[in-house]
Amino acid sequence: MSAIDFFYEFASTYSYLTAERIEARAADAGVEVRWRPFLLGPIFQAQGWDSSPFNIYPAKGAYMWRDVARLAEARGLGFVRPDPFPQTSLRAARCVLAVDPAERPAASRAIFRAEFADGAQISDEVVLRRALEAAGVDADATLAAAATDPVKAALRANTDEAIAKGVFGAPSFVTEDGELFWGDDRLEDALAWASESVARRP
Amino acid sequence: MSAIDFFYEFASTYSYLTAERIEARAADAGVEVRWRPFLLGPIFQAQGWDSSPFNIYPAKGAYMWRDVARLAEARGLGFVRPDPFPQTSLRAARCVLAVDPAERPAASRAIFRAEFADGAQISDEVVLRRALEAAGVDADATLAAAATDPVKAALRANTDEAIAKGVFGAPSFVTEDGELFWGDDRLEDALAWASESVARRP
Repeated sequence: MSAIDFFYEFASTYSYLTAERIEARAADAGVEVRWRPFLLGPIFQAQGWDSSPFNIYPAKGAYMWRDVARLAEARGLGFVRPDPFPQTSLRAARCVLAVDPAERPAASRAIFRAEFADGAQISDEVVLRRALEAAGVDADATLAAAATDPVKAALRANTDEAIAKGVFGAPSFVTEDGELFWGDDRLEDALAWASESVARRP
Repeated sequence: MSAIDFFYEFASTYSYLTAERIEARAADAGVEVRWRPFLLGPIFQAQGWDSSPFNIYPAKGAYMWRDVARLAEARGLGFVRPDPFPQTSLRAARCVLAVDPAERPAASRAIFRAEFADGAQISDEVVLRRALEAAGVDADATLAAAATDPVKAALRANTDEAIAKGVFGAPSFVTEDGELFWGDDRLEDALAWASESVARRP
């Protein structure tokens, strides 16, 4: 079975859209998904941006809000604009790295929904606790583990690996043979590439 | 019959991809396409960019070249990286505004192919002449008309209208009810929106 790395950022609207559909699509394609939360902040800062490009470039931002709202409506997903945007995603990313990998998809989706369907503040421990509990995860243990050095190091490692693989935005998908695909609208292409590259193996 | 405005820029790789497929897809959808060449330069300059964002942000640029090469291969299109990139597209845009609207799609595709399939310089009059002739257009008359004030004004008007409609990149599509879609990968969504908005009319 082939696999793809799914690099996602909790502050990212398009990452929310992908988190809601990647498991079903990957199952159809027979591809395993490795859920890899990372931080866009260091990547944006290296480009000289002190905020989201959707805030820095107003026309691009206005388009994104409309585009995501259209897509969410077509897919039957709730969508509200978080305030402030982008949300501070550090703690959320650490939390999902602190849970068992098998629980990471459900925990991640619960946090994305709190943020983008309910408009809650994902930097808020109460919000994270509620989302983790909704996903069936031990919230106390997770919040405690999220503050430990190994988890902090795991998030830095994900971000460093994303940068090394050429990632500059979220969501991004990387196949085992190193092909990078950027954006929710490239999910199908990434899965097809992963399936075909396995078929090409001797 | 509904219609969409297709805003394209001759220096834009993704505009080339769309120019090669928009007519067939629009015919399938029963939507008329208005070919609207415009210039991204003024939009980028207003954002503080003195070149293409694909040059300013190297990771984004590296991804774009790979992404377009993959898409071109999958669609059976030639693709080479023009040098320099971006090409100076002012004269090409004026030329296609100088031809009859019925000839604009063929003339535009011929110029895109010269640039992105053959690697020719589209700022070069010899290249433009050859492309126009390949499209069955009177090259002498077109090149002469392209240098006149009404054609220059028409290009400025297209660019101003694109900005007024929220365009920030190319290709972009705008439906008659004002919905903006950005990117070759949103062509199908734009056509579907245009078809459905006609169906919703009383």
